[in-house]
Amino acid sequence: MRAAIFRDGDMVVDTLPDPTPGEGQVVVKTLACGICGSDLHAFHHAPKMVEVAERSGGGFGMDLKRDIVFGHEFCAEVLDYGPGAQKTLKPGTRVCSMPIAFGADGVSGVGYSNDYPGGYAEQMVLNEMMLLEVPNGLPTDQAALTEPMAVGWHAVKKANITEEDVALVIGCGPVGLAVIAGLKIAGVSPIIASDFSPARRKLAETMGADIVLDPAETSPYERWKDEAAPEGYDPKNWMTMMGIGPQLRPGVIFECVGVPGIIQQILEGAPKAARIVVVGVCMEPDHFEPFFGINKELNVQFVLGYSPEEFAETLGFLAEGKIKAEPLVTDKVGVEGVKNAFEELANPEKHAKILVEPWR
Amino acid sequence: MRAAIFRDGDMVVDTLPDPTPGEGQVVVKTLACGICGSDLHAFHHAPKMVEVAERSGGGFGMDLKRDIVFGHEFCAEVLDYGPGAQKTLKPGTRVCSMPIAFGADGVSGVGYSNDYPGGYAEQMVLNEMMLLEVPNGLPTDQAALTEPMAVGWHAVKKANITEEDVALVIGCGPVGLAVIAGLKIAGVSPIIASDFSPARRKLAETMGADIVLDPAETSPYERWKDEAAPEGYDPKNWMTMMGIGPQLRPGVIFECVGVPGIIQQILEGAPKAARIVVVGVCMEPDHFEPFFGINKELNVQFVLGYSPEEFAETLGFLAEGKIKAEPLVTDKVGVEGVKNAFEELANPEKHAKILVEPWR
Repeated sequence: MRAAIFRDGDMVVDTLPDPTPGEGQVVVKTLACGICGSDLHAFHHAPKMVEVAERSGGGFGMDLKRDIVFGHEFCAEVLDYGPGAQKTLKPGTRVCSMPIAFGADGVSGVGYSNDYPGGYAEQMVLNEMMLLEVPNGLPTDQAALTEPMAVGWHAVKKANITEEDVALVIGCGPVGLAVIAGLKIAGVSPIIASDFSPARRKLAETMGADIVLDPAETSPYERWKDEAAPEGYDPKNWMTMMGIGPQLRPGVIFECVGVPGIIQQILEGAPKAARIVVVGVCMEPDHFEPFFGINKELNVQFVLGYSPEEFAETLGFLAEGKIKAEPLVTDKVGVEGVKNAFEELANPEKHAKILVEPWR
Repeated sequence: MRAAIFRDGDMVVDTLPDPTPGEGQVVVKTLACGICGSDLHAFHHAPKMVEVAERSGGGFGMDLKRDIVFGHEFCAEVLDYGPGAQKTLKPGTRVCSMPIAFGADGVSGVGYSNDYPGGYAEQMVLNEMMLLEVPNGLPTDQAALTEPMAVGWHAVKKANITEEDVALVIGCGPVGLAVIAGLKIAGVSPIIASDFSPARRKLAETMGADIVLDPAETSPYERWKDEAAPEGYDPKNWMTMMGIGPQLRPGVIFECVGVPGIIQQILEGAPKAARIVVVGVCMEPDHFEPFFGINKELNVQFVLGYSPEEFAETLGFLAEGKIKAEPLVTDKVGVEGVKNAFEELANPEKHAKILVEPWR
């Protein structure tokens, strides 16, 4: 099968042996697979990524001297089953799956493994029990967005959100856009979204943000306060200071940028007692001043991935039209186009999500 | 009145005018006042402390060119009332109060203010509505520990603790000891406490820790895992990895040291999905690697102080003998002894809490 392969630190197109499904597994044809920011990060910083993942208690188990096929945001079609499978879904059925596969040798991340090529290849091996049939004739491109959208839904669930909350989303890349979609479903209002890019701000509106702003012009934290303050709110009033008088609505801030310095920026800007949900994936060392967290009694919830239930729910949201993710797809390429797409994605004015169609 | 005064960066003993209670206020005689780690920090780093507090949204409003009398952990005796007071408690009544005072000019921290001298002075001005009568004949020395013990109780409450949790307390100074006392009241078991000092470990046991350890010999995080693992727990089992098989009990880790580097150490050692409660007050810039938090989905709750309810509850716990804090008091001094006590407190083998008795 043809694949875009991460080999010796470069991205090359080559032919690999067709994968063989093991016990309880299934081989699928990749219909569409999104390019994730983590793939870009792995492309540029693979050794550091493997090292920090290993140290932080959940390694990828990737051998960078061997081929790796990225791609963990996919929609696929059932081709054939391995031994012992129940074969509930007929060949030709369109499916999604969480990008993990497991066999006698343990659990692997599809797309971050030497043994399980991801969706930048024509075929993948998945586990039958993880398959979810794409419902309601949901278009393949949108079904492929289940994985990144599930990241946002998970973040919102981990925030223990209530309708009292005023939400602020810092960064409107695919992660921030997924969070906005999740907040909309959770009934949060208003949702305030901040990004330097006009195109990303437009997408934020499309995904359901009530207020979008350019942080170069308006402080997201000041804007948050305007929205969160009830009638007659006066921070200098002693009753308010003692917690008796009118208070700001609770604040939940989603960090969706993932570069060093952002968490400290949020600690500085956040209102008292805010919950900060770190969804952006920063793999670099960072600095912060704990006293900002202490003096405001902030809560920082780091999140990663999603549960199987959240993944399935997200596919349902897409199929029911509760998340309209179509505008996120800004281009589609074949395996030959992957390397160029990695460069193109640096431009937020032009791109949000590029899908790979390895069958092209 | 005589007082130990923070003046021009030094600690001096001098006479100050007796303070006058304003509208709704009361003047009290200080019976005993604990020396807090924050007082030591202020003594050594006052300008930085004022600066970082100002920047982080809750300044002390202290003018360091003017006199400041520290002391916010006190038990006192009612002397006389200002105008408009209800005078519910007779002169001679022993009282505690949260160390805040307010008047027409706003809210001040008693002991961190130019206007409200703290408990290192013979007299203080407090607000009548904040007074709590010392119940059950609780000895003055223990009543004076209400404030530091309330810090621990608040931290435990903010952790949303359940009896499922296995708790780990990093650092057994007065803050860690207060947390242990709070965990005991909340019914958490086991409570694991870690400190390099044998004397502090002994105090940890006295306060209710079930397991105490020296981190130079035993990793607190490994010890935590031993306690949190149920029968048949195998982290490599795929069902366990998928969240279906036996799981570790939930972990809550209390950071009670407050120096740079500790939070990253805890991020490194913490088990997946642990809640980390930062009770130690670090006022320096710090470093961390966000990916440790992300990869394990950690939650970091910064805490400060306590609510009026928690403060009153803590006085009740002391009066009912639910917290037996007597062994924490390792010395008592007059105002002349404060400066020396600040130095003595550097030795954890000798001291935990030193009380100032300004009437001596």
